[in-house]
Amino acid sequence: MKTIEGTETATLRRYRRACDYLAVAMIYLRDNTLLREPLRPEHLKPRPLGHWGTCPGLTLVYSGLNRLVRRTGQRTLLVTGPGHGAPAIHANLWLEGTHAEYDPALSLDGSGLAELVGRFSWPGGFPSHLSPEVPGVIHEGGELGYALATAFGAALDDPGLLVACVVGDGEAETGPTAASWHCEKFLDRVGGGNVLPILHLNGYKIASPTVYGTMSDDELVAYFTGCGWSPRIVDVTKAADADACLADALDAAHGDLAGDRPPMLVLRSAKGAGAPESDPEGTPLAGTFHAHQVPLSAARDDPDHLALLENWLRSYHPEELFGDDGVPAGDLLSVPPEGELRLGKVPQANGGLLRRDLPLPALEKFRVGLDRPGGAAASPTETAATWLAELMRATEDRRDFRVVCPDELESNKLGPLLTATARAFTREVPGYAEQLGADGRVMEVLSEHLCQGWLQGYLLTGRHGLFPCYEAFVSIVDGMVNQYAKFLKMSGEVAWRAPVASLNYLLTSEGWRQEHNGYSHQGPGFLNNMLTKKASVARVYLPADANTLLVTLEHCLASTDRINVVVAGKQATGVWLDLPEAREHFRAGAGVWHWASTDDGRDPDVVLACAGTVPTTETLAAAELLAESAPGLRVRVVNVVDLLSLAPAERHPHGLADPEFEACFGTDVPVVFAFHGYPSAVHEVLHGRPAPDRFHVHGYLEEGTTTTPFDLLASNRMTRHDLARAAVSHAGGDPATGEELLRRRDELLAHAFAHGEDAPEITGWRWS
Amino acid sequence: MKTIEGTETATLRRYRRACDYLAVAMIYLRDNTLLREPLRPEHLKPRPLGHWGTCPGLTLVYSGLNRLVRRTGQRTLLVTGPGHGAPAIHANLWLEGTHAEYDPALSLDGSGLAELVGRFSWPGGFPSHLSPEVPGVIHEGGELGYALATAFGAALDDPGLLVACVVGDGEAETGPTAASWHCEKFLDRVGGGNVLPILHLNGYKIASPTVYGTMSDDELVAYFTGCGWSPRIVDVTKAADADACLADALDAAHGDLAGDRPPMLVLRSAKGAGAPESDPEGTPLAGTFHAHQVPLSAARDDPDHLALLENWLRSYHPEELFGDDGVPAGDLLSVPPEGELRLGKVPQANGGLLRRDLPLPALEKFRVGLDRPGGAAASPTETAATWLAELMRATEDRRDFRVVCPDELESNKLGPLLTATARAFTREVPGYAEQLGADGRVMEVLSEHLCQGWLQGYLLTGRHGLFPCYEAFVSIVDGMVNQYAKFLKMSGEVAWRAPVASLNYLLTSEGWRQEHNGYSHQGPGFLNNMLTKKASVARVYLPADANTLLVTLEHCLASTDRINVVVAGKQATGVWLDLPEAREHFRAGAGVWHWASTDDGRDPDVVLACAGTVPTTETLAAAELLAESAPGLRVRVVNVVDLLSLAPAERHPHGLADPEFEACFGTDVPVVFAFHGYPSAVHEVLHGRPAPDRFHVHGYLEEGTTTTPFDLLASNRMTRHDLARAAVSHAGGDPATGEELLRRRDELLAHAFAHGEDAPEITGWRWS
Repeated sequence: MKTIEGTETATLRRYRRACDYLAVAMIYLRDNTLLREPLRPEHLKPRPLGHWGTCPGLTLVYSGLNRLVRRTGQRTLLVTGPGHGAPAIHANLWLEGTHAEYDPALSLDGSGLAELVGRFSWPGGFPSHLSPEVPGVIHEGGELGYALATAFGAALDDPGLLVACVVGDGEAETGPTAASWHCEKFLDRVGGGNVLPILHLNGYKIASPTVYGTMSDDELVAYFTGCGWSPRIVDVTKAADADACLADALDAAHGDLAGDRPPMLVLRSAKGAGAPESDPEGTPLAGTFHAHQVPLSAARDDPDHLALLENWLRSYHPEELFGDDGVPAGDLLSVPPEGELRLGKVPQANGGLLRRDLPLPALEKFRVGLDRPGGAAASPTETAATWLAELMRATEDRRDFRVVCPDELESNKLGPLLTATARAFTREVPGYAEQLGADGRVMEVLSEHLCQGWLQGYLLTGRHGLFPCYEAFVSIVDGMVNQYAKFLKMSGEVAWRAPVASLNYLLTSEGWRQEHNGYSHQGPGFLNNMLTKKASVARVYLPADANTLLVTLEHCLASTDRINVVVAGKQATGVWLDLPEAREHFRAGAGVWHWASTDDGRDPDVVLACAGTVPTTETLAAAELLAESAPGLRVRVVNVVDLLSLAPAERHPHGLADPEFEACFGTDVPVVFAFHGYPSAVHEVLHGRPAPDRFHVHGYLEEGTTTTPFDLLASNRMTRHDLARAAVSHAGGDPATGEELLRRRDELLAHAFAHGEDAPEITGWRWS
Repeated sequence: MKTIEGTETATLRRYRRACDYLAVAMIYLRDNTLLREPLRPEHLKPRPLGHWGTCPGLTLVYSGLNRLVRRTGQRTLLVTGPGHGAPAIHANLWLEGTHAEYDPALSLDGSGLAELVGRFSWPGGFPSHLSPEVPGVIHEGGELGYALATAFGAALDDPGLLVACVVGDGEAETGPTAASWHCEKFLDRVGGGNVLPILHLNGYKIASPTVYGTMSDDELVAYFTGCGWSPRIVDVTKAADADACLADALDAAHGDLAGDRPPMLVLRSAKGAGAPESDPEGTPLAGTFHAHQVPLSAARDDPDHLALLENWLRSYHPEELFGDDGVPAGDLLSVPPEGELRLGKVPQANGGLLRRDLPLPALEKFRVGLDRPGGAAASPTETAATWLAELMRATEDRRDFRVVCPDELESNKLGPLLTATARAFTREVPGYAEQLGADGRVMEVLSEHLCQGWLQGYLLTGRHGLFPCYEAFVSIVDGMVNQYAKFLKMSGEVAWRAPVASLNYLLTSEGWRQEHNGYSHQGPGFLNNMLTKKASVARVYLPADANTLLVTLEHCLASTDRINVVVAGKQATGVWLDLPEAREHFRAGAGVWHWASTDDGRDPDVVLACAGTVPTTETLAAAELLAESAPGLRVRVVNVVDLLSLAPAERHPHGLADPEFEACFGTDVPVVFAFHGYPSAVHEVLHGRPAPDRFHVHGYLEEGTTTTPFDLLASNRMTRHDLARAAVSHAGGDPATGEELLRRRDELLAHAFAHGEDAPEITGWRWS
């Protein structure tokens, strides 16, 4: 069924000519940007940069979506997987006037055009890839694979929104993208928007054919049908009228959005279409991978290349598209929609504008009551879950808070959340099931990549969320969080980007209590990765008990533009601080626990420091052991909740000022530090503090297997006995005391090996 | 077509009863392992550990494969995705006698049975998941997603080998697995073996239905047909005879291995089949996710649970399966194949036994000739590629060396490799293509996950390989390398595991020269992750020039059981050392470059240290600048090729002894260290060295965009001018000298911003 007239496609073709011209110009030209004079070497950028190959296809999609939006008024957000096709997106943004609105220098005339062309891939100008500086962008596409999951995150809980997502056939080879085709099973298309994936097959990546490009139409249809889609092949390489061909497909897809099986398009187009057939040396260009980046990069030095480039540029007839003043012809300006319907101006692409503070429930009702430190025991995550469930209820109408989790909600003792909402799943389940529902706001899938992608899309479009995860497996998304940290860092430098809710990780099922699942489940390295991030972005919190976790989550869920990593245990453990104390402790970042110390508030012989649930318990027990074994030793116990409070204040905004740091750690006293993760993380943060060598950090030494919790601590020299012995040793105490401590440890270990469980006095230990 | 007799299936059923019994026993029992007396609480492990849910399905597959192997003599390796189903695998290994061969205590009688059952999930015993301690295992399955890619790696270049791979339906949701279904397009089934994937759908993960479990048969068939397979649904939940049903499918698949479209099976079975229907509280167990782990975990304390557990155990009638002496009945022992055909004994599963040293070509022919330091320029990776190409030719007949790469071979200037082999791809390419071939030994796919999985499978089955990668994107496999490092660490503790070839990364297209691709392509954090690994496993090398890279790769490709990370540039850069010097420098790990120093070999005012291609160039240039600007300053230049040589010798085997360290860095002289990656990596490694505060490390500060190389250096304060200024400042020199250096830097920056390229004297700089 034809839904488009010939005159309309003629205009679209002209519009695309203009965009393609601008994209080529951006890659090569610094001057003579409208080609008003013969092209000379000095008009060219000395280092032509950019990726032509995907540009014509992206513009075909952009212009097709423009038409759809104009025709239907459909609110549409575009997520561009091949972010390296930035020139195409810039050209469209300029022609729709979005660029000029954000930056008057990019006005819709010859001066703006010259600025746009010259600024691309120029020092201080636009990067060669999409980035937060570019309007309409919630996904960079530098590291490939995450566009589709991000698109789904953006569509959640926004009924009426269409998220069109271009997936390149290079990106399609990645694991995260391959998993993302199943996301339709998690998107409630009644309570949320729609995602329209457009798999863009131009057949090649940098230097090879693509996997999807070599699949037959039958295979492609089978594959995507199997995933649950209603696929349609749009092969513009065989179409007489590419715009009409795509318009028909988009119109049909738009009509089918509410159907049982959602539509998706497979767009076949020639790579780098419009480039010369081959270069002067005979290397084929258009339609091959040789058009991937800069097909005629020698143009500045080689007259044959230059002539070919000029021909290529003139093949778009810029003189027919732009007036003498450089203003685009009127028909071109009629193609994009207007106002907030423009793809570059849709508010969801600057989601901070839409973000509302969460109605965070008061913590008091959820706190663990306490008459003395350690006077109660509670699972930190289970305690937090009751509060999170209340938050879930409080956002039931707003629907702007979600929890993503790789199938570990129950395992992480966050099950109470399921009293407030279901797990999102839109499929009929043939057998037994519990707590599933299309409108559920807990999203469980056994893919950390999908969890991360969904959450990024959800946050960047103005909503809030939490990502609880097994600590050891969150490193699966190291690459994604690296890129997201860059996105946030750059967003902070863009004046018009409004702050978005922070990305909050709750890392639990931590290694120290993965004694049953064993070595593969023990890995705290995500913290080391977070410490490589900018001080403006990354935060690492290690609340030691349930009340401190509540306070920490309250802070994180109210914060913006951060990546907050919160590590907390799920097993019941002592509660050391009541709520006001926890608040004060969190605010300070680190502090002395006088009630556990024996230094009368001054001049300790040794500081026992700790960060993390299990290390804190062991440290308190070590202090207790020392009180018996080395009663003359003046011991100070310091707990660290904000890891970055240890950093020098000039290096990190959370770093304790010197007097506060010294109030905790003195200046020359030995410190035995029990740390949740790799000791290197503490050494690294402490760098620049005076006399760092006095910090003796115990932590995970990459020793583990399936065993008892106490044996796991012993393998890594972090039992209470090891800590107490280290304290005695570094404070110059009696070596015999240390020996005796080790003997007691080994007695307990022997019990564990003989009986398969830790001795009761260990697992049942409480501060008193 | 029925290919199996009733008597045979009866035996298989009995065999599976024995395995299932043993698996349940392993999870719960410490004593009374043959149930010769009524079950009492004290017979139970205090903490029952394990995952029952997947066990019966794994045994069904294992026994079906046993029959196939006996019948056909087919060499078969089993890769088990759901490694948490370890009890099932252990039961099979015991019955086939593999366990007893590796450990006489696990003899095929009552004593061995008791030992097996008692040792599982017990401190000092077998971990609850598969691990290198378990015969037949090349994949742990703790972190899910990598079984299938590993299986493909194992099948490469081993014609006649069948790699059966069980993929759980939880694991199937992961990205890496979803991408792996396309691997058949890269496996040459003539020059290599076959992979038979068995997607095991039991419908549930920890607490939810699975995505694949809720797909219809039609969807599953469509999906896998689209991926290129010939899928067959094997639904034993509906079959009268599960063994016959699977046997038919396996026989048919085996017959079709050489067909156009390789076979794969979708096995539907009930989760935790055999467990009670529900627990005493009425929670459904068998066939639901409640059977995932330990269905009756309260058995020790609750008599109703205990009674149900006893019923469950007795439902297998162990008295019919094991004699009074605990020896399995003869018919059970007839099920597994014999010798090296047993799945636990196939030599490929202990691939170090098959590994042969590579015929590494002599380096001399490939070195860059040199009459003085910096007297030549060369691209390190391109130089290495000519040598690697020769190695590729030298292994043409052996076919035990491959290069995996995420579509970046050409981009990384490793194109010369393609003179020696093609890129592996088995599909017809509809359009233009270059250098593709089914038998190619370069494997390019736009998925770091697949590259890593392929290489792991290839190495663990006794072969060799190299993984060149864009530095910034290798963090995509952080999770995988974390697990692989654990696998190697544990393998080293297993006496019978023979050493395998090291996993070698060549990280290039490094951030400092990703000025064109921009911020998303700049990220050296993989090094920080590697530094969290055991000293027995991880190595980090930063050769500064082409000759040193040759020497480094020669070392790495000859090494075993390591993860070697080599970082080197691809752009032409100065060559500083001739081959003998490079060898000596590499052997030392770090050393003084006297020819660039002005301290006459003693008492420098400042040390300029460097590690990495770009930092070395800048440091040498800084030394040159200082010779002009601060001629009185005694400067020593130190280059570090082995990052871990900086670590204290007691902490790392590569750490320089104190005298050697002091010969480089003195004891109290300021050191300005130009480092390739995040400065924190150097601080961390230096921890424990005396006076670490005198090391002023310049490195990547997470500042970047699309710009010029020089501007990128300037943003991170690592230009030669910044380094020289820091040297003057830390050595107490004239501040005016520093100011003048910065002025000169800013002049060059102004040039870069105005002209879009660095000033020629920067990019053209040569040591002379």
